[in-house]
Amino acid sequence: MAQINQFTITEAVKESFQTEEGSRFKFLLETFIDHLHDYTREVNMTHEEWMGMLMFLYDCGKISTPERHEFILLSDVVGLSALVDMINTRGGATEGSNLGPFYLDDAPELELGGDLARGRDGTTLLVHGIVRDSLGNPLPGAIVDTWQADGSGTYPIQEHGQDKYDLRGKITADGEGRYYYTTVLPKPYTVPYDGPVGRLLRAGNRHAWRAAHLHFIVRAEKMRAITTELFFENTEYIDNDAVFGVRKSLIAKLEPVKKSEEFPFALEKRPDAKCRFDFVLAPEG
Amino acid sequence: MAQINQFTITEAVKESFQTEEGSRFKFLLETFIDHLHDYTREVNMTHEEWMGMLMFLYDCGKISTPERHEFILLSDVVGLSALVDMINTRGGATEGSNLGPFYLDDAPELELGGDLARGRDGTTLLVHGIVRDSLGNPLPGAIVDTWQADGSGTYPIQEHGQDKYDLRGKITADGEGRYYYTTVLPKPYTVPYDGPVGRLLRAGNRHAWRAAHLHFIVRAEKMRAITTELFFENTEYIDNDAVFGVRKSLIAKLEPVKKSEEFPFALEKRPDAKCRFDFVLAPEG
Repeated sequence: MAQINQFTITEAVKESFQTEEGSRFKFLLETFIDHLHDYTREVNMTHEEWMGMLMFLYDCGKISTPERHEFILLSDVVGLSALVDMINTRGGATEGSNLGPFYLDDAPELELGGDLARGRDGTTLLVHGIVRDSLGNPLPGAIVDTWQADGSGTYPIQEHGQDKYDLRGKITADGEGRYYYTTVLPKPYTVPYDGPVGRLLRAGNRHAWRAAHLHFIVRAEKMRAITTELFFENTEYIDNDAVFGVRKSLIAKLEPVKKSEEFPFALEKRPDAKCRFDFVLAPEG
Repeated sequence: MAQINQFTITEAVKESFQTEEGSRFKFLLETFIDHLHDYTREVNMTHEEWMGMLMFLYDCGKISTPERHEFILLSDVVGLSALVDMINTRGGATEGSNLGPFYLDDAPELELGGDLARGRDGTTLLVHGIVRDSLGNPLPGAIVDTWQADGSGTYPIQEHGQDKYDLRGKITADGEGRYYYTTVLPKPYTVPYDGPVGRLLRAGNRHAWRAAHLHFIVRAEKMRAITTELFFENTEYIDNDAVFGVRKSLIAKLEPVKKSEEFPFALEKRPDAKCRFDFVLAPEG
């Protein structure tokens, strides 16, 4: 047999996988093995550290359920989720940001100008803007699918006895690509920190707070859908969001609504504040 | 706020952890984040690949139990366990190899010359040698803690109704550092491949077989203990062990025992074959 040592083992492991030459799987796997082995050699990993790392993954697995995916949370707090969002943002399109764990793909429809908050306490916020393509043309009929936490930082889906479809809605843009609705201004909240990822945050003296945000998936025919979040200027944690979701281009200005102010569209509920955000979609493919 | 993008996010994530300057934890964490982010950028990871990777970890967590640690198995098949063993082998000492999942630290004592097989079917093998320090001095009283699969490739601990302490024993070396005992020649076996790691092996057209081996932990006063495995020349899978446990220096020659052959020590059972292996321990610290 050929001797393997701490340097030649990397090629030996790669060669042990009989993967299709030039395939994406081969590339993903081999590059992963290179980095894993390089990391191990660079830090001169001890057996105790190795076992600590594996037990951390084991603990992440134990606390995970279909509703509590600790590995996604881990990916979030080490900036991996944000990095993947950044890599996959198309030039000219609105920047992507975290999908998060609370999306449901069958949210009810919300009429243009409707109130998503349905009587919830908090600041009534008008959210409006235009869905456009990267040349500036409006995209009539675009679907703005939104979900969010309430005025105390909780998603209805997290609370026993609440309707999980609350604070979720799909809005269809009008003939000029405009969307507008009112909702309650969300509050910041913490990511779950009662598990292994919480231990990691504490070990690194990090907080678990997310800056307040609205979630969006925006779709239009023949355009690449975008998953993103909208944040608000000068709000808490905007500079140190626990999952690195904030981008400068995703921060909207919160402005008070004057008593005399009139809007070029009809609203179900009079807002206290407003913010404008235009979504830009790139073509498919 | 400072804008972060796919290049600056790596430093931002590292800075979010408030870890002690110069600490081992800081070094392990920052080097990990560097490699994770570099990998993600190098392969231009898509959202589908990202989710596939996280679901793979989720599945590893779901199948894991205290007796079935899928993350250790994953570490084994991508050569990480072997690499950590190699990195931690001390110069001049016997090379380390996989601990594996079946070790029990409270194995019964086995007298020098005793038979570990206790009447099991198979080839009776004499295992003998000297435990020495790296200068060649014998280490009297060294403890040779061994465990192994049987003549059909099964560990008693895996089989319902069998004594989990079978085929395990702690042997104390004599005044000249010699150890000797008989046992049954083990057979190759497969690592568990009914879980996500099995899926990975199949995707890479890899088999799940381990070359036949004996496990050892050897300890002596003031010496660094070694965890290793002993393999046999010209046996199956010696060139493509599924967990990369084989090293040239850990392969012993299997030799037939002649009818007339006499041994310089007393044995409980007459062997059919023999192999010699000396263990070399480095000083502690």
